[in-house]
Amino acid sequence: MSDHVYKKVEIVGSSPDSIEAAIENALSVASRSINHLEWFEVQETRGHIVDGAVGHYQVVLKVGFRIEHN
Amino acid sequence: MSDHVYKKVEIVGSSPDSIEAAIENALSVASRSINHLEWFEVQETRGHIVDGAVGHYQVVLKVGFRIEHN
Amino acid sequence: MSDHVYKKVEIVGSSPDSIEAAIENALSVASRSINHLEWFEVQETRGHIVDGAVGHYQVVLKVGFRIEHN
Amino acid sequence: MSDHVYKKVEIVGSSPDSIEAAIENALSVASRSINHLEWFEVQETRGHIVDGAVGHYQVVLKVGFRIEHN
Amino acid sequence: MSDHVYKKVEIVGSSPDSIEAAIENALSVASRSINHLEWFEVQETRGHIVDGAVGHYQVVLKVGFRIEHN
Amino acid sequence: MSDHVYKKVEIVGSSPDSIEAAIENALSVASRSINHLEWFEVQETRGHIVDGAVGHYQVVLKVGFRIEHN
Amino acid sequence: MSDHVYKKVEIVGSSPDSIEAAIENALSVASRSINHLEWFEVQETRGHIVDGAVGHYQVVLKVGFRIEHN
Amino acid sequence: MSDHVYKKVEIVGSSPDSIEAAIENALSVASRSINHLEWFEVQETRGHIVDGAVGHYQVVLKVGFRIEHN
Amino acid sequence: MSDHVYKKVEIVGSSPDSIEAAIENALSVASRSINHLEWFEVQETRGHIVDGAVGHYQVVLKVGFRIEHN
Amino acid sequence: MSDHVYKKVEIVGSSPDSIEAAIENALSVASRSINHLEWFEVQETRGHIVDGAVGHYQVVLKVGFRIEHN
Amino acid sequence: MSDHVYKKVEIVGSSPDSIEAAIENALSVASRSINHLEWFEVQETRGHIVDGAVGHYQVVLKVGFRIEHN
Amino acid sequence: MSDHVYKKVEIVGSSPDSIEAAIENALSVASRSINHLEWFEVQETRGHIVDGAVGHYQVVLKVGFRIEHN
Repeated sequence: MSDHVYKKVEIVGSSPDSIEAAIENALSVASRSINHLEWFEVQETRGHIVDGAVGHYQVVLKVGFRIEHN
Repeated sequence: MSDHVYKKVEIVGSSPDSIEAAIENALSVASRSINHLEWFEVQETRGHIVDGAVGHYQVVLKVGFRIEHN
Repeated sequence: MSDHVYKKVEIVGSSPDSIEAAIENALSVASRSINHLEWFEVQETRGHIVDGAVGHYQVVLKVGFRIEHN
Repeated sequence: MSDHVYKKVEIVGSSPDSIEAAIENALSVASRSINHLEWFEVQETRGHIVDGAVGHYQVVLKVGFRIEHN
Repeated sequence: MSDHVYKKVEIVGSSPDSIEAAIENALSVASRSINHLEWFEVQETRGHIVDGAVGHYQVVLKVGFRIEHN
Repeated sequence: MSDHVYKKVEIVGSSPDSIEAAIENALSVASRSINHLEWFEVQETRGHIVDGAVGHYQVVLKVGFRIEHN
Repeated sequence: MSDHVYKKVEIVGSSPDSIEAAIENALSVASRSINHLEWFEVQETRGHIVDGAVGHYQVVLKVGFRIEHN
Repeated sequence: MSDHVYKKVEIVGSSPDSIEAAIENALSVASRSINHLEWFEVQETRGHIVDGAVGHYQVVLKVGFRIEHN
Repeated sequence: MSDHVYKKVEIVGSSPDSIEAAIENALSVASRSINHLEWFEVQETRGHIVDGAVGHYQVVLKVGFRIEHN
Repeated sequence: MSDHVYKKVEIVGSSPDSIEAAIENALSVASRSINHLEWFEVQETRGHIVDGAVGHYQVVLKVGFRIEHN
Repeated sequence: MSDHVYKKVEIVGSSPDSIEAAIENALSVASRSINHLEWFEVQETRGHIVDGAVGHYQVVLKVGFRIEHN
Repeated sequence: MSDHVYKKVEIVGSSPDSIEAAIENALSVASRSINHLEWFEVQETRGHIVDGAVGHYQVVLKVGFRIEHN
């Protein structure tokens, strides 16, 4: 187990609703093409403003996944 | 469009309810005196503790807006 | 009042529900053994992924409290 | 002279042509409303991509100016 | 109280005497045009050298103040 | 639109001529294999020295692109 | 000697008088409960503003001390 | 040669033995699917603890490789 | 499991032999007084020089452990 | 070749014309007293403002060179 | 004047008395072997603790000076 | 003793064998021309890759030494 190798990629999710929803959207899309997603790290939280309120949140994440190798 | 100039100012919003509410409060107040608010960037998330629980969240934001010039 | 001395310790809270719930969990546990908790500062937001969705959020906090000395 | 007080504000200039042109555009607009501009510090260099090439550069600057006080 | 909104601006004070005097000079000038100054954060400490000694200290500060909104 | 998901990858362009040319070279190569490139962020600017002059510039960029998902 | 183990804790001292006095206050309180204090590292310098002047300085320190183990 | 374009990806290697072995494991796995690996940069060194000793080291690396383009 | 709370403390290990030995020394001493040590993060690697060679390595670590609460 | 030792020194070049010219000026002066200059890394880009335009650019560089030792 | 080239070197001054005295000591020694010292930038402030009080302050500075070249 | 002044210089050591060997190589070369070397701080760890394995490690260090002045 101690020889596992992981890769981290950087993705940006967005949502008009909340920071958590932006994270979930990013993970949902990433999981369609990446197996073995194991963890995420928030890098930046930002967003667009519409009429003096949050239009949508944008959360920049690193997601880590195990690379299969045999 | 590619010659637009923007300004960024730093504001701090607070709310007893959530990080998102603290952001919305900050944008709401900023939009009373600033036009053309376009985006925000979260710089810090912190807060006060009351009786072992969050008293209120404080979110430090940079907000960006277009400077009108003709 | 201006001679108060504070200490900051680093804790990590987690929750399957939201970033705010992870913060509240951390503060709830910290307040059982620390008096005079006054503020927190979010250092990192991360989490584990289960089946392409957030399994639980992990929020790394610094919490500050007043040291009693007389 | 050693008691001068300065203020720094953050602006973003853009240009389709070069990093230097984006800086000059930012300074040109800032100088219409601010006197005594003395120095700038580049914070970030970024830009938009159109058809696989730079659409325009965006340069985030801090500009410093002397505050008059008598 | 938990809905207060604050703004932070960046200023640079200088003094031939000490770091503390440079901070006080910056606050003194800032307080002429800004109400409700509440806190400061030192960003950088630097200075000019004259004849192998400190000519004057320059301290870059962020100062925070409450925005009135009713 | 607010549910878009983006990915960021890190590339390094080089050119003997200028920082801008190094950026354009990186974008030109990246756009051959990546669709929907939308923005770039300069991370580092460096280069090799030949005979006391710039041999070539190397610019480390993050480039962001929209992930198609339907 | 080369196998010593040290611990670092983070404390915040304050004083209305100077940055040095805030550091001394923090060390004075820390030394009542910690033996073998050996060094400190300033992390942040900040303070509260009262009537356009420094109300008190707050200095965030890490202090290091040797852990006894036999 | 001065127009080469490189890509950097982030991987995490682990080993119970040493930091160097964790790096070698990461490179060994990466080189199975990536050609022209040229350099690595250590981003973070961490690990898991088992019974008060290092269970395994985890080293986060960026690895750079040349992109072929003709 | 998702409600675990952890604490992180900062320690410094040293060894004349290697970076890994300095980490092991730190963990060995920390584990005498702390239960449930789970992970470490290297913050800084430094050391003392004796006669133009490494006298001993000093490695600054954060170590994380689960807080028991029932 | 794998035992080469390098030194890095920090220099600041300036030019009224462009960022690239400021870099070239710095390298030109450095190469008069340093042999084996191999690479540079841009640390900061800043400048002075004259009449609302760039007076001159200042680029802070680290330059690396091989130390001869036999 | 806009083609001046500067060099920055890193020095550490110490004093039992104050941060300012540590800076002055560093500049005094540096000025014996370096001409044209123009500015300094504080990088770190730290110190040694003796009997629960500051033994001496250590201030890490970068100092900048003009390189003569004709 | 509290008035000592130190200088820090940045060097890069390399070795095909280990991170520690790269550090030792750097110190060995530095000590030929610098007296009173007292400590080092690792700034970056990186290396070249040959055939999917470490070709050699490169460790960027700051080394500190006392400046003699009487």
